[in-house]
Amino acid sequence: MNHTIHRHHHHFVWDRSLEPVYEAEPGEEIGFEVTDSSAGQLSKTSTSEDVAALDFDRVNPVNGPVYVKGAKPGDTLEVEILGFGPQSWGWTGVIPGFGLLSEHFQEAALKIWDLEQGKAEFLHGIEIPIAPFPGTIGTALAEQGAHSVVPPRQNGGNMDIRHLTRGTKLYLPVWVEGAMFSVGDTHAAQGDGEVCGTAIEAPMDIELKFQLHKGRQIKEPQFETKGPLVHGPPDQRYYVTTGFGEDLMTACRKAVSYMIEHISHMYGLSDVEAYMLCSTAVDLKLSEVVDIPHYLVSAYLPLSIFK
Amino acid sequence: MNHTIHRHHHHFVWDRSLEPVYEAEPGEEIGFEVTDSSAGQLSKTSTSEDVAALDFDRVNPVNGPVYVKGAKPGDTLEVEILGFGPQSWGWTGVIPGFGLLSEHFQEAALKIWDLEQGKAEFLHGIEIPIAPFPGTIGTALAEQGAHSVVPPRQNGGNMDIRHLTRGTKLYLPVWVEGAMFSVGDTHAAQGDGEVCGTAIEAPMDIELKFQLHKGRQIKEPQFETKGPLVHGPPDQRYYVTTGFGEDLMTACRKAVSYMIEHISHMYGLSDVEAYMLCSTAVDLKLSEVVDIPHYLVSAYLPLSIFK
Repeated sequence: MNHTIHRHHHHFVWDRSLEPVYEAEPGEEIGFEVTDSSAGQLSKTSTSEDVAALDFDRVNPVNGPVYVKGAKPGDTLEVEILGFGPQSWGWTGVIPGFGLLSEHFQEAALKIWDLEQGKAEFLHGIEIPIAPFPGTIGTALAEQGAHSVVPPRQNGGNMDIRHLTRGTKLYLPVWVEGAMFSVGDTHAAQGDGEVCGTAIEAPMDIELKFQLHKGRQIKEPQFETKGPLVHGPPDQRYYVTTGFGEDLMTACRKAVSYMIEHISHMYGLSDVEAYMLCSTAVDLKLSEVVDIPHYLVSAYLPLSIFK
Repeated sequence: MNHTIHRHHHHFVWDRSLEPVYEAEPGEEIGFEVTDSSAGQLSKTSTSEDVAALDFDRVNPVNGPVYVKGAKPGDTLEVEILGFGPQSWGWTGVIPGFGLLSEHFQEAALKIWDLEQGKAEFLHGIEIPIAPFPGTIGTALAEQGAHSVVPPRQNGGNMDIRHLTRGTKLYLPVWVEGAMFSVGDTHAAQGDGEVCGTAIEAPMDIELKFQLHKGRQIKEPQFETKGPLVHGPPDQRYYVTTGFGEDLMTACRKAVSYMIEHISHMYGLSDVEAYMLCSTAVDLKLSEVVDIPHYLVSAYLPLSIFK
């Protein structure tokens, strides 16, 4: 490894005017000590009261920015994910006003995960496969000023793509000189959709390698991955709920609501526990997006998580 | 097998007043000779002109209805998918006015697939894994009258869920006495989303077994499957495009448009060929649905289809 971006070198907005913390040559291998998405506001001993009291001006920090020498607007920055350091703990929270079903789940909730043993036990007998990735990864935007780090945009950002796993090559558009790359919001596991708004939020180190593709223009991030796209044993079964709707968000909400009902009924979890379990282990799929006026979303629960 | 529902026993609307073609006992194994979704309007020698001339009052036929003895509103009908007969040919079409990118692709197009050898070659050197399932499967609606078979609803219907493969148990709500079950629209392969509006539309036989769960109420279809959720070799790589948007449909359209650009550029296909390839082989995933005001959809292309 050529250089480390330490924990305190983080920022809370995308802003092209930020000073770079490091100038990297293409080909360098760089480590990032990523803190959790609460920026240390939560710890192993936190409670749901601490979630309700989170300071939202200080969430989702990203380490950087790194200036990549030679990068110009119109190039593509390749970011190879070389690997992750160990994870010791993580949290999953329901944050009032945030999440797919925020109208229904209005109270703060928190699950603290002990990851020391290399496994993620939700409750006794329910174990999620660990599959780390960075939730937020991107370059600075062309537009002047400070831009919230919460939504994903043409610079990447908070994409929460759970397949940005070890060995993946992520391609990011370069919008400003030097690209001004940052990464954060590491997750130990997440389902496609991240429905309650948080994954297994876990501080960890991540090692990356940059390459430049001069003159290759893409409009939004793309990537190549070997996956695996699904975790758990190859012969595992899935229980799936479906929701139709005239818009996809309605279909998403119904499919997840039905899955929460199913998990609560079958496994004796409370609704909010089932909601957090969905966020960390259930994958949303767009089954069809053409049979107007209704579309269909399906929520896939891998049954091997129940031991 | 206890009984066969032959090809001519099909209908084009959900209507609770249709006469059943068979009365089945729970536990019976029943075969369905399913015609293709054009109801025979297209054949191995058809051209794009035939797609443009399709009679839409005669598309998406379903075989049935089958009256399941003992089924009452408020029960759940379990449909186990025992297996599929061989497929000899199929078609993928772009139908003007239909499909995710219908504003861009306004002309009819047609690809005829020869499936006799047990494989699905799109163009020389591009081969899609065959993974058959019924696109349309459901029960009659409680509401009187004729209801289009095109959209999915609380009775199932045209759900286009590609994981309704062999060994799957599908659970359908029963809305009328006897359930009045029908199935059709068999697909030899499809990507999640079915973006151009058609899959590999292929006539084939399907064998099903019914069970009743008395008094178990679900609001919309659910299922249990062993998958596999992905096809191709376990070590294959995926190329993925992403699209963000303030609504999920915008995000879907962008992700698919970028994938069409990628496929055209990398593999020399025309745009409409790439669009049809996406519909049969590329999976749309909801990467995140909570980072307001933007959501992210990703389109996954399995690279092992390129030989």
